[in-house]
Amino acid sequence: MGTSGTVTAAGGRRNPATYVRELTHRHGPTLDRARETVRTRAHWSPYPEDTDAYGPGAAAGARAALAALRGQVLDLGQPGRDGLVGPAPADGGERSPYGPELAIAYPHHDPDTLLPAMREAMPAWREAGVTARAAVCAEILARINAASHEFALAAEHTSGHNPVMAFHAGAVHAQDRGLEAVAQAVEEQTRLPGSFVWSKPMPDGEPFVLDKTFTLRPRGVSLLIGNSVFPAWNGYPGLFASLATGNPVLVKPHPRAVLPLALTVRTAREVLAEAGFDPNLVCLAPERPGEGLARRLAVHPDVRIVDYAGTTAFGDWLRRNATQARVFTSTSAVNSLLVESTDDYRGMLANLAFGLALYSGQLCTSPQNLLIPRDGIATDAGHKSFRQVVADLGGALAELLADDAAAVSVLGALLSPEVLARVEKAASGALGEVAVAPRAVAHPDHPDAVVRTPAVVVLDAARPEDLATLSAEWLGPVHFAVAVDSAAAGVELLACTARERGALSAGAWTTSPEVEAALEAACAEAGVMLSFNLMGQWYITQSAVYSDLHGTGMNPAAGAVYCDAAFVTGRFHTVGVRRHRASG
Amino acid sequence: MGTSGTVTAAGGRRNPATYVRELTHRHGPTLDRARETVRTRAHWSPYPEDTDAYGPGAAAGARAALAALRGQVLDLGQPGRDGLVGPAPADGGERSPYGPELAIAYPHHDPDTLLPAMREAMPAWREAGVTARAAVCAEILARINAASHEFALAAEHTSGHNPVMAFHAGAVHAQDRGLEAVAQAVEEQTRLPGSFVWSKPMPDGEPFVLDKTFTLRPRGVSLLIGNSVFPAWNGYPGLFASLATGNPVLVKPHPRAVLPLALTVRTAREVLAEAGFDPNLVCLAPERPGEGLARRLAVHPDVRIVDYAGTTAFGDWLRRNATQARVFTSTSAVNSLLVESTDDYRGMLANLAFGLALYSGQLCTSPQNLLIPRDGIATDAGHKSFRQVVADLGGALAELLADDAAAVSVLGALLSPEVLARVEKAASGALGEVAVAPRAVAHPDHPDAVVRTPAVVVLDAARPEDLATLSAEWLGPVHFAVAVDSAAAGVELLACTARERGALSAGAWTTSPEVEAALEAACAEAGVMLSFNLMGQWYITQSAVYSDLHGTGMNPAAGAVYCDAAFVTGRFHTVGVRRHRASG
Repeated sequence: MGTSGTVTAAGGRRNPATYVRELTHRHGPTLDRARETVRTRAHWSPYPEDTDAYGPGAAAGARAALAALRGQVLDLGQPGRDGLVGPAPADGGERSPYGPELAIAYPHHDPDTLLPAMREAMPAWREAGVTARAAVCAEILARINAASHEFALAAEHTSGHNPVMAFHAGAVHAQDRGLEAVAQAVEEQTRLPGSFVWSKPMPDGEPFVLDKTFTLRPRGVSLLIGNSVFPAWNGYPGLFASLATGNPVLVKPHPRAVLPLALTVRTAREVLAEAGFDPNLVCLAPERPGEGLARRLAVHPDVRIVDYAGTTAFGDWLRRNATQARVFTSTSAVNSLLVESTDDYRGMLANLAFGLALYSGQLCTSPQNLLIPRDGIATDAGHKSFRQVVADLGGALAELLADDAAAVSVLGALLSPEVLARVEKAASGALGEVAVAPRAVAHPDHPDAVVRTPAVVVLDAARPEDLATLSAEWLGPVHFAVAVDSAAAGVELLACTARERGALSAGAWTTSPEVEAALEAACAEAGVMLSFNLMGQWYITQSAVYSDLHGTGMNPAAGAVYCDAAFVTGRFHTVGVRRHRASG
Repeated sequence: MGTSGTVTAAGGRRNPATYVRELTHRHGPTLDRARETVRTRAHWSPYPEDTDAYGPGAAAGARAALAALRGQVLDLGQPGRDGLVGPAPADGGERSPYGPELAIAYPHHDPDTLLPAMREAMPAWREAGVTARAAVCAEILARINAASHEFALAAEHTSGHNPVMAFHAGAVHAQDRGLEAVAQAVEEQTRLPGSFVWSKPMPDGEPFVLDKTFTLRPRGVSLLIGNSVFPAWNGYPGLFASLATGNPVLVKPHPRAVLPLALTVRTAREVLAEAGFDPNLVCLAPERPGEGLARRLAVHPDVRIVDYAGTTAFGDWLRRNATQARVFTSTSAVNSLLVESTDDYRGMLANLAFGLALYSGQLCTSPQNLLIPRDGIATDAGHKSFRQVVADLGGALAELLADDAAAVSVLGALLSPEVLARVEKAASGALGEVAVAPRAVAHPDHPDAVVRTPAVVVLDAARPEDLATLSAEWLGPVHFAVAVDSAAAGVELLACTARERGALSAGAWTTSPEVEAALEAACAEAGVMLSFNLMGQWYITQSAVYSDLHGTGMNPAAGAVYCDAAFVTGRFHTVGVRRHRASG
């Protein structure tokens, strides 16, 4: 890594133009397939989920690569270096949710040097055209994919993912999101002819002829404000959509999760340089503690696109203040499940327990509110009272998480002290009766990791104070078993919460066609993706790239949809030119 | 006209469902062709420009139909009638720019009755599906097309168009804009499969299968705020884009141009009712003098989409205040032409003179600033000094507009006292030296019509006060011949004006490849459609539907583009549902 522009990994020199043609040839079929899949919405991915597919030494190599970064300055060769962020946590260095400090320092950069350099890099990238840009983006993703074990390890030790989730959401699925965005960008940028003849028959019999062209014009510097939960999965859509449509991308990572995006930017800069483009098309801007860099950058007149995933408050601030930019946001969600009836009670409990436990409920799609009729539910194992359902869910969680080693492989680690404070408040009984108490899990390998099993607190939708509790977002292992008067009341509460607080997922177990229809109508109205009767190895938290749309733009949880046409069309413009063709 | 829901024009009764199928069959090929043309951008229109194509009695019939409206209340049968607008001008009635009062009254409606009625009409329209909605929209446009002479007459006597422009921009080209929007709406609403199977191979060998659906969800009531210049041409894109994507449309016409949109709404309501839909899907909301209805409606929580063409100030107000809605605006433009060199001096002067004179410079694409190097230009007729070019332009205008009857057929009438005030100010010399003085033209048929030939005032780009003058919008027959230091200075001034003040068209006459390249780059940067060396019967003011994009979204003149994908995708959302398929 860290090679200069025209030197290959093998040490040879190659011509950048030849290399771009080679990339176009190499990645063309993959991009075509991605575009086709975006239309069919079938299952497909070019990036294997199987960790063994990356060779026998990959995992060990990744550990060694990350260990080698300890105590180093990860310098990406950007202009305007004016200090360091980290390595000590007090100076902005990262600490793993599993305990250790990462002990990596990142150069800090003056935005007033970075931004002009990025603007200067634009014209050649713009003029390279859609196909070349897409091929370069695909190569960046291919190299990131080849280093998936390294990216997974970085995700584990910044976001606290369990190893499987880190390999999925922190690596291959994030790469899928990136390639999906590139495919959409190609699709949208090739919908109009580049040049064409317009010939109109005139009353005198002679056609009137104009030669016309359409020129695509990228908006300008794109700012990606990363989050700490899924910096790659939430970041790659905007990063690659902007880059593929011709815009430079400035990446402002979350202070707790710099490494995954730093490695991403490093790879992007390498590929860009080798392909003969200015590596400053993708830059990293880590921030000093308390610097407030995101606010400063977001309103900079050079910044014309902003992608953000995070809190509703900052998303609202961006929409109000970054008026010079197109703003794509994905913010807080209060997700609900309706447990109404099932013909596979054990299967439902197992799927539900896993859905709650996965990454300690820290996903933006994690279900928070479990709405259960107070009179109980019908199941293949007979009628189950509200209390029984909650108790059996507790049993399913206990079974899933009985063994500490198995538990941490599902739960991962708590992301931050704020998450721990929430689960401790829930455990204290302050929110309501604790039906399932969270348990501190000792991580076999990381004694300092903070790990808790999910807390389930009983609430009653008839009590205003309980309604207020369940209407707020409690990201983390805090879930509410909410007694509702009826299935219809549950549908109404689910829709109302989604509409007013935002939601990215909704689910139900029901055998009733009426409840199913009511819920489908309510979720269409509230704009939430809805999953019915999930069993086995697919969970409400999951969003299948190329198939599901993530977000709808209809409720406060998301102004951006991964990855619809609007997610890329807002990043470029089209300008026409008409030339009179002299007759004769 | 004015038939009730289930009675045909011929007096027979028909089943609405059968009728919708019939419309789908009838208009399917036209819609397919429109979608294809939107991709190829070739010339095409299903609506003949030739006035004779509408039958021998069409023009006389239209005059009779409009005469019959005099002294009448044009009641569309909407709920919540609470008074009248007009017929007297003091009560909000319209007066033709050609002189006479229209003497038509329109019912005024309480929005708090209209809006709930419109929301109630949504579900059946939404459930009808993309194809049926598009067919109904196409039938509305077909009926409007059949009445093109009537719509043209209405355009003449509200906007002051000349008869040819009224037949084009007030009728057939506006219909083209509407059908183009419907075609785009079909395209965008059919890009995702409605239902599909997602099957993922799992490590255990069994595929994991989900049945998935995508449901389209219209945003809600769409508000069209009409203008007085081109209420149909600027109004139909939003109206039909919203209707075709499932949204009801409330039309708030400009007080001076109610009739064209009232006739449009009447036709839409007739077709909707005959097709078995609630006619309240399209309603008209004329306003009382000074009522400020647009402001009130635009921030109403039920209003979820706003289309507006008009002043920059109100466009800005809408973007700041109508935050609950998607806002599509087309606002003020300061358009410039560069006259640098030509190999057809006479042809250039003729085309330029017509481009200035057409509709008295009242189009949003009319050129205001003619940028001419102060050292003169090279032409096939030898070098021409700055003064000579301006003098020859004056000669070409005088030739074009020598005869009063011929002049009014190009100029139309001045739209409003504000336009007259601007041309009188220019004629007074207050803005600069008057090179071409405007002339009052007596309309042979309408003695009260206010008609003026274009004024051309000489300015100098080197003088700050002249720069301030040319940077403001002077809609109407006011043009500036601006001396610039060089072609390069002209390019820079053109781009700067477009970027800062907004522009919808730019043009140039040049034989220099360098100037052409510089201008093309500058217009791509500023986001203005650029026309080179126009001659003969195509003018800088014209935008070919299905071929040119109107607006770019890059400069202050337009946040909406007629008609790109984003113009329709912002009007609906997509919600996914996933259902677990039990194995076996």
